[in-house]
Amino acid sequence: MSLLFSNATVLPMTAPKDGVPYFTGWVGVEANRVALVTASQAEADAFRRTHPDLREIDCRGRLVMPGLVNTHCHAAMTLQRSYADDIPLMTWLNDYIWPFESRQTPDDVALGMTLGIVELLLGGVTSFVDMYYFENRCVEVVEGLGIRAMLGCNYFDSNVDEVFPQIEEAVQLAAAGSGRVRIAVAPHSPYTVSPRNLERGKDLADRYGLHLTTHIAETQDEMRIVRERYGCTPVEHLDTLGLLDRRCIGAHCVHVGASDIGILASRGVTVSHNPQSNMKISSGVAPVEALRRAGALVTVATDGTCSNNDLDLWEELRTATFLQKSATGDPTALPAWEALRMATVNGARAMGYADGDLGVLREGALADLIVVDLQKPHLQPLHDVVSNLVYCGKAADVETVVVDGRIVVEERRVVGVDLPDLYGRVAAAVRRITTGK
Amino acid sequence: MSLLFSNATVLPMTAPKDGVPYFTGWVGVEANRVALVTASQAEADAFRRTHPDLREIDCRGRLVMPGLVNTHCHAAMTLQRSYADDIPLMTWLNDYIWPFESRQTPDDVALGMTLGIVELLLGGVTSFVDMYYFENRCVEVVEGLGIRAMLGCNYFDSNVDEVFPQIEEAVQLAAAGSGRVRIAVAPHSPYTVSPRNLERGKDLADRYGLHLTTHIAETQDEMRIVRERYGCTPVEHLDTLGLLDRRCIGAHCVHVGASDIGILASRGVTVSHNPQSNMKISSGVAPVEALRRAGALVTVATDGTCSNNDLDLWEELRTATFLQKSATGDPTALPAWEALRMATVNGARAMGYADGDLGVLREGALADLIVVDLQKPHLQPLHDVVSNLVYCGKAADVETVVVDGRIVVEERRVVGVDLPDLYGRVAAAVRRITTGK
Repeated sequence: MSLLFSNATVLPMTAPKDGVPYFTGWVGVEANRVALVTASQAEADAFRRTHPDLREIDCRGRLVMPGLVNTHCHAAMTLQRSYADDIPLMTWLNDYIWPFESRQTPDDVALGMTLGIVELLLGGVTSFVDMYYFENRCVEVVEGLGIRAMLGCNYFDSNVDEVFPQIEEAVQLAAAGSGRVRIAVAPHSPYTVSPRNLERGKDLADRYGLHLTTHIAETQDEMRIVRERYGCTPVEHLDTLGLLDRRCIGAHCVHVGASDIGILASRGVTVSHNPQSNMKISSGVAPVEALRRAGALVTVATDGTCSNNDLDLWEELRTATFLQKSATGDPTALPAWEALRMATVNGARAMGYADGDLGVLREGALADLIVVDLQKPHLQPLHDVVSNLVYCGKAADVETVVVDGRIVVEERRVVGVDLPDLYGRVAAAVRRITTGK
Repeated sequence: MSLLFSNATVLPMTAPKDGVPYFTGWVGVEANRVALVTASQAEADAFRRTHPDLREIDCRGRLVMPGLVNTHCHAAMTLQRSYADDIPLMTWLNDYIWPFESRQTPDDVALGMTLGIVELLLGGVTSFVDMYYFENRCVEVVEGLGIRAMLGCNYFDSNVDEVFPQIEEAVQLAAAGSGRVRIAVAPHSPYTVSPRNLERGKDLADRYGLHLTTHIAETQDEMRIVRERYGCTPVEHLDTLGLLDRRCIGAHCVHVGASDIGILASRGVTVSHNPQSNMKISSGVAPVEALRRAGALVTVATDGTCSNNDLDLWEELRTATFLQKSATGDPTALPAWEALRMATVNGARAMGYADGDLGVLREGALADLIVVDLQKPHLQPLHDVVSNLVYCGKAADVETVVVDGRIVVEERRVVGVDLPDLYGRVAAAVRRITTGK
C-alpha cells in the first residue's frame, strides 16, 4: 500500500531553503521508500492519480519528519528500570544489576527488548543501535515489531566463546529477514575486554562486513585502568588495535582530549553521546562541541533504562544542547538544528546507511518517518518549529510512526501489541527474577 | 461535590512508612479539602456512605499524589516560546525580547498567561509563582482556569510607580476571589532595581503581608555589577536591605558561596532552582546540594518559556537531579525522593502555606492533587514508583488534575478551554506583535 501525508509541516532534515528548513506540503511513500516530498498541490494530485491504492493521512496541524535514530541502547534493560537508583556504582553492580542479569533467560531478554522497542517506537525512534546479550534471540522481536535496528552482541573475556557463535547465528537470521536488522560485534569496552579479544571481535566484524560498537572513555576509572594497563588512553588503545574506523560506534567518549578527538574524527568513528546517562552516573561531560569542530560524527542516544531511566530521545536531544551550553558557558553552543541533525542524519550515517538513504525525507530514501502533533499547548505558538521540537517536543507528541514504509504506530498505538498483556508478562518476569517466585 | 479516588497507588509525600512512601488505597475530597487518605476498604466504604453526592473515580493502574508546585515562572512568555534561541544574550534582549514586550498589551499578557496555565495544568502543576507585568490583569485568568497562583508583579526602577498601584489593585482583586490567588511584590533583581526601590518593595510587601520574589545571583555579570556597585554579593546586598526572610523567594541563586548559602538558610529564604534555564542560558550550576545541607528551603521551577522552552516541571525535576549528580561527581546526590519533595512539600511551604496544608495528601490539607497513569511503557515495570516518576514521568502521564477540590483537568482536557480557539488567538496576537499586522 502507498501512503500520502497531506497538508503537513514537512521537515525533511535536508539543507534549509532560504534559511527555513520546513514547508507546508506532502510526503508520499511507495513500498518501503519515500516517493514524494513536495510543496506542490499539482505533484500531490499526480501522486494520487498514479497510486490508486493510496491511503491518505491528513496532517493539518502536524509535522512530518524523519524518524529518530538512537545510537546506543540496552533496550532489554527496561526490565531493570528504576530497580536500583541513587546508590554508589559498585553497590549498584554487585548487589543489583549483576545478580538480576544472572537470573535472566533469553526469553526474559526478548521480553525486555519488546517493552523497550514499544517505548522507542512510541517516542518516534525508528532505528536504534543496541548492545546486550542474547541479541540473537532478539532478531525475531525486531522483525515482529517493525522497527529498524542494529543489534550489537555484547561480550566480555569471560563469555566471548559463547557470544561469537551467537553473532554468526544472528547474522544468518538477519540475512533471512526484512533487511531492517543489522548485526554488530560489541565488545563491552577497552578495560573489560583483552586486546586479543578486541582484535578477534574486529576480525569477526570484518569477515561479515559488520559494525563494531563499544563503550569508550566513559568514566575516570576506565581512564586510570587503561592508562595503568596499556600506558595510553582508551582511544589510543583501540586505535592501536585497529578497531577505529567508519564502522565503529563509540558510546560516551566523555574523557577524550584533543589528541583523542583528532583520532576519532580522522578515523570516522561515530561518537554516541548519552548526556542523561553521563549526568546521572556522574561520568562527566563529553566535549561534544570540540568533537563537532574537529569533524567527528556525533550522534545522540539514550543508553539503557538503568542509567536514565527511559528511552526518550527528545529529552536526550535537549539535554545535549543544555549540557553543552552549560559546560562551555556559551548559550549559542549546539543549536537546536544541529541537535536534531545528530538524532536523524548523523544517526543514519552512523548505522552505515549512505547519505540520503535514511535519516532524511527525500525521494528514494527509506521510508522511516514520524508524524508529530503540533496542536499541543507546549508547541504553540509556532515562531520556530525546530526550536519547538528540540526544546519542547515530547515523545507523547508523536502520533504516527512509519518504518520501512509500514505504519507501526498509529494514534499512539503500537500495531499488534497488547499493552496490558505485555505489562503483565513483564511484571511476572521481574517478580520471578527478583524473588524466585 | 465530593470525590473519591479508588484503588490508586497513593503517594501522599508524607514520611514513608517502613521505607515505602506509597500504598494502594483511597483518597477522598470534600469541598476544597482532602477528607480521606487510607488503605482501608472499610474506611472507604464509610466515606461512600457519608457522602451520597460522591463522584468516584477508579484509579486502578494509576497514582494519586499532590499536585506539583512551580516556584518561578513567567507564564505569559509562552507567546515568545522559541521566538529567539541559540543567540547571544544581548542580541536576544535588544533585538527580540524587549521589542516584543514593548508591543504587548495587557490582553496579550492575559492570553499568554492562559496558554501558560493550560500547559502547567496539563503537566500536573497545581500551584505556581509567577513574575511578570500586568499581573493585576491576570488575577481573573487564574480565577477562571482554576489553578492556584502567587502572582508576582515585576518592576524595574523605570516603572516602579506604575506597578505599585497595580499591586494594590491585584491585592484587592485576589482578596475578593476564591482564595487561590496570592500576590507578591517582584523587584526584577538586585542589579536592575535600586536599593531605594528594593526597600520600597519590601515595605509594600510587609504592609499587605505579601511575599517578595526576585532573581538572585543568576549570572556572573550580575555578580560583577553588584560587586562593583555595592562591594558585596547580591545575597549580602539584599540582606543588608532587609529583603531576606521567610517570605522571600529567590530565583536561581546560582552564584552563591558558603557565606551566601549560610545567609539564605538562616533567613529562611526559598531558593527556586531552575536547572534547565540555568543550563540553556549558560548561567552556571546552582549548588543545590550545599544549599540543602545548609538547611535552605530548595524548590524547583521552570522559569519562562524563553529560556527552557516549556513549562514541564517533570523534566526540571530530573534535570535537577542529573545536574547535581553531574556537577558534584556523586551519583547519589539529590535522590529522586528529595527532588519530588522539592516540587511538592517544599514548594507549598515556599508559597506560604503551613506545613501539611498544601503539597501533601493528608486529611485536612487543601485538595490539590493529580492522577498519573502508570500504564505507560516508560513507567513499567514498577520496581520503584518514585524513581519511575522522577526519572521517567512525563507531563502527558497526568490524566486528571484537582485544584482546591475542583476537577480542572479530566482525561487530559482542561475544563472550559477550547484549545483550537486558544491557538488561533495566540497566533493572531503574535502575528500582530511581530509584524504589526
